Amino acid sequence: MRALARAISLVERRDPSTRELFETLGEPRPETEILGLTGAPGTGKSTLADALVAWHRAHGESVAVIACDPNSPFTGGAIFGDRIRMQRHALDPDVFIRSMGARGHLGGLALASREAVRLLSAYGFDRVILETVGVGQSELEVAGVADTTLLVLAPGLGDGVQMIKAGIMEIADVFVVNKADQPGYERTVLEIRSMLNMGPKLPWKPPIVATVASRGEGIDELMEAVARHRAFLVSSGRMEARRLERLKDEAADLVGEWSRKAARRLLEDDDDLAGRLEADKAPYGAAESILKEEGARLVPGQQ
Amino acid sequence: MRALARAISLVERRDPSTRELFETLGEPRPETEILGLTGAPGTGKSTLADALVAWHRAHGESVAVIACDPNSPFTGGAIFGDRIRMQRHALDPDVFIRSMGARGHLGGLALASREAVRLLSAYGFDRVILETVGVGQSELEVAGVADTTLLVLAPGLGDGVQMIKAGIMEIADVFVVNKADQPGYERTVLEIRSMLNMGPKLPWKPPIVATVASRGEGIDELMEAVARHRAFLVSSGRMEARRLERLKDEAADLVGEWSRKAARRLLEDDDDLAGRLEADKAPYGAAESILKEEGARLVPGQQ
Repeated sequence: MRALARAISLVERRDPSTRELFETLGEPRPETEILGLTGAPGTGKSTLADALVAWHRAHGESVAVIACDPNSPFTGGAIFGDRIRMQRHALDPDVFIRSMGARGHLGGLALASREAVRLLSAYGFDRVILETVGVGQSELEVAGVADTTLLVLAPGLGDGVQMIKAGIMEIADVFVVNKADQPGYERTVLEIRSMLNMGPKLPWKPPIVATVASRGEGIDELMEAVARHRAFLVSSGRMEARRLERLKDEAADLVGEWSRKAARRLLEDDDDLAGRLEADKAPYGAAESILKEEGARLVPGQQ
Repeated sequence: MRALARAISLVERRDPSTRELFETLGEPRPETEILGLTGAPGTGKSTLADALVAWHRAHGESVAVIACDPNSPFTGGAIFGDRIRMQRHALDPDVFIRSMGARGHLGGLALASREAVRLLSAYGFDRVILETVGVGQSELEVAGVADTTLLVLAPGLGDGVQMIKAGIMEIADVFVVNKADQPGYERTVLEIRSMLNMGPKLPWKPPIVATVASRGEGIDELMEAVARHRAFLVSSGRMEARRLERLKDEAADLVGEWSRKAARRLLEDDDDLAGRLEADKAPYGAAESILKEEGARLVPGQQ
């Protein structure tokens, strides 16, 4: 467990020494189910994550939660404020909870969460839950890593529904209306339903599940919806297609990450390139010549 | 003005066709002062931006505000909710206000704000204010674009000060304690001061300025502090050094952005690369061979 935590820290730090490890590990085991948990602040995502952990433990399954926070570059490995409640699982060896920030560069968070999933799967966890703090671009990038993405809403949070309207609803495989015992629940469900009806007809129609996570209500129904989505992914061939898409995304993200870092070093060390910048008063020519002439030196360990 | 807005939309969309334009424009005019405005939500950043706009107009200077929101990939060009108040400047041709999201990829926001500054400077604006929505990694990246970064705090927002403790204070050239008429003001100032005293002794000691932005109070003192910081940058040679550092950052970011996008396309089109991914069950080998063998094809327009 301590080695796992250390490996995740290396991943978060984007340490190039992990490459060999991941080449040995290969892809996550197909049995590991990767759940994305996203939604606006205030919808009770962390309470829901807690309820999901309890559900998995009650069903004899091990579970890991990675809380991805693109706004926390500094607190790597630290625990979210409201994550304290999860300490009831602190002594359970089949539960792993960890937050991950976007150290170094924003784009790195999706790469780091993909690699964390590989580690957790290889370690043997049955489920990995990727929780995000909000509903922005970084959440979209993290959602790309999950098999099934739960979009969490709560009654009376106009913002949440507006966000969906603005375009995030495409990432939802299952809608969760949490705090379903609060006033405004029916209206929230109606709003989601009417938005779904306005959109194009899709092969998978995202179900809407009501939960009261603080009391563990609706979690059985939610996990049933997740299982149905997984069955759909497998039977439609989408699971296999997504697997390759994910490898392509990951390879492209690595190309971007490696080349940006190495280019910054080259620009610091190479006087010709610095002179080029001074002459051009623009970065385009230097960027172009780095890619055209120094491609091989952009790979970590090849300088 | 409409052409300017259109050009900023191209920049936000990361359209490669803008390269020629920026190679012609060169760097921002040295007279254009670039102010960064960052701080936790609830500190009154937008009200302060509004007060700064009013101050510049009262002093006969034109001013542009770019509100950078890494969490708004969908609302490019739209207006922040609380930005409505700025509409009092809507008919003033010497004021330009615009929000910018992180469409496509998170790392793109710093690049987009750099290019927006070039456009606004070439258009003739005396000041450009880059406002960010929070205090995370994206804010750090945007702060790298500004000459002077204002870190805004407010009394009674424990979070704000905690964030600083966690490491963001290094980006502050000037601390602004806004809502200085509210209880807890002295304590906030004391906390900032004691943190500054704990840190290493720096050649520029960030001043702490009290404002009540909603009533325009303290803005003269704030702009005086900004002017002093600018004078320090120039006399110490830091302004010139930063200019080259910024070009290097920008070139490295472009290398990363170009190569990530082009690599994703290559991976889609090239069956050998896809086969490599399938065989490796890991992205590293394919990423490496793209950089080593396809470097020249990663530059936009070179496929």
